[in-house]
Amino acid sequence: MGFWKSIFSSPDTASASRTIPFEEYTAVGASPRPNTQAKIYFSTDRNIDLYELEELCDAVGWSRRPIRKVKKAIAHSFIVVSMWEVRGTRRRLIGFSRATSDHAFNATVWDVVVHPEFQSKGLGKALMKYLIKKLRSHDISNITLFADPHVVEFYRGLGFMSDPEGIKGMFWYPN
Amino acid sequence: MGFWKSIFSSPDTASASRTIPFEEYTAVGASPRPNTQAKIYFSTDRNIDLYELEELCDAVGWSRRPIRKVKKAIAHSFIVVSMWEVRGTRRRLIGFSRATSDHAFNATVWDVVVHPEFQSKGLGKALMKYLIKKLRSHDISNITLFADPHVVEFYRGLGFMSDPEGIKGMFWYPN
Ligand SMILES: CC(C)(COP(=O)(O)OP(=O)(O)OC[C@H]1O[C@@H](n2cnc3c(N)ncnc32)[C@H](O)[C@@H]1OP(=O)(O)O)[C@@H](O)C(=O)NCCC(=O)NCCS
Ligand SMILES: CC(C)(COP(=O)(O)OP(=O)(O)OC[C@H]1O[C@@H](n2cnc3c(N)ncnc32)[C@H](O)[C@@H]1OP(=O)(O)O)[C@@H](O)C(=O)NCCC(=O)NCCS
Repeated sequence: MGFWKSIFSSPDTASASRTIPFEEYTAVGASPRPNTQAKIYFSTDRNIDLYELEELCDAVGWSRRPIRKVKKAIAHSFIVVSMWEVRGTRRRLIGFSRATSDHAFNATVWDVVVHPEFQSKGLGKALMKYLIKKLRSHDISNITLFADPHVVEFYRGLGFMSDPEGIKGMFWYPN
Repeated sequence: MGFWKSIFSSPDTASASRTIPFEEYTAVGASPRPNTQAKIYFSTDRNIDLYELEELCDAVGWSRRPIRKVKKAIAHSFIVVSMWEVRGTRRRLIGFSRATSDHAFNATVWDVVVHPEFQSKGLGKALMKYLIKKLRSHDISNITLFADPHVVEFYRGLGFMSDPEGIKGMFWYPN
């Protein structure tokens, strides 16, 4: 909260007072809602209100997960990207994604979500491109994910290939 | 090295002197080569000779990877399991696997390998079962991997399902 305040309520002093580098925040364009001052920002700061994240996941119909475990998963992800609609000093969490990784070869993307009010405007694509850019900047060359059938085309549009050379995604669940 | 010595050359004092808990080491049965004193052990210790690991990967024809990056990947994996043939005070690395994870929900298994001399004896299965047990003991319920076409059946035999409910494994590589 304090961080966001320092950036958005005192723009004149922000560049001196903020503690997280500015390149972590990239405006991707005007808000999808016209006639407002809102802008869309990305962040890799993990200090996310977990109840706000839960609301976002609720909005796309995902089943609830224990907050304690979500917190642990975020802490142990390699990169966490959140997407925000910012109007003046107010900001709203409108997108999220994260990736696990061995920090060297492979990363796996999980929990990609854009709030329904903001879908189909290119923001999911922008969020994924931002995550890929971050992973590439850490020299990760093999970015993987497991796509639900209805989003395979979304990821294909970003350059992801399904089952390249016959490689199959496999799952084990306790029974 | 000192660790292995303390376990295998002074069995009487081992339980007092070792620093890594004994449950990390489980004998899985007699060596595949008869008429020896050798046994097979598992370890989750990451302190592996990376040149010995490179030799193991060479033996199954995997392409070489920079040692520096392998070291980083091992350090940032959630669980690393190595499999050893032990004869007296000598041990030989004969299998390996590791998993990345968010420590809460998902794990992804990478680099599963058994030395050709030790394949087709049930050791790959035992190695994977050991890794699954370790992941389950950390409350991970979604264990995933990307299987080359020729090993899909191997993983199916362990209870892994490919493309459950149409979920597709997808890859992004830089071009
Ligand atoms: C999937 C999701 C992240 C996409 O975000 P979005 O902001 O709606 O997507 P975009 O507007 O950036 O779409 C980018 C491109 O993908 C296409 N696309 C988006 N969703 C798609 C879908 N479900 N199926 C096929 N194509 C899709 C768009 O048509 C667009 O194509 P274009 O570049 O040719 O115009 C979003 O719909 C979402 O959160 N869905 C619910 C949660 C979910 O299912 N997540 C994935 C879990 S594996
Ligand atoms: C794949 C590998 C780890 C299997 O280890 P292994 O010790 O030979 O396997 P096991 O002897 O434990 O076999 C267990 C079961 O899987 C089956 N199996 C093993 N390899 C198989 C294969 N390539 N295709 C189909 N089934 C296979 C065995 O028949 C056995 O079946 P059973 O339980 O019904 O008897 C090993 O062959 C290997 O290291 N291969 C080279 C590296 C590689 O390809 N790794 C996977 C990268 S995705």
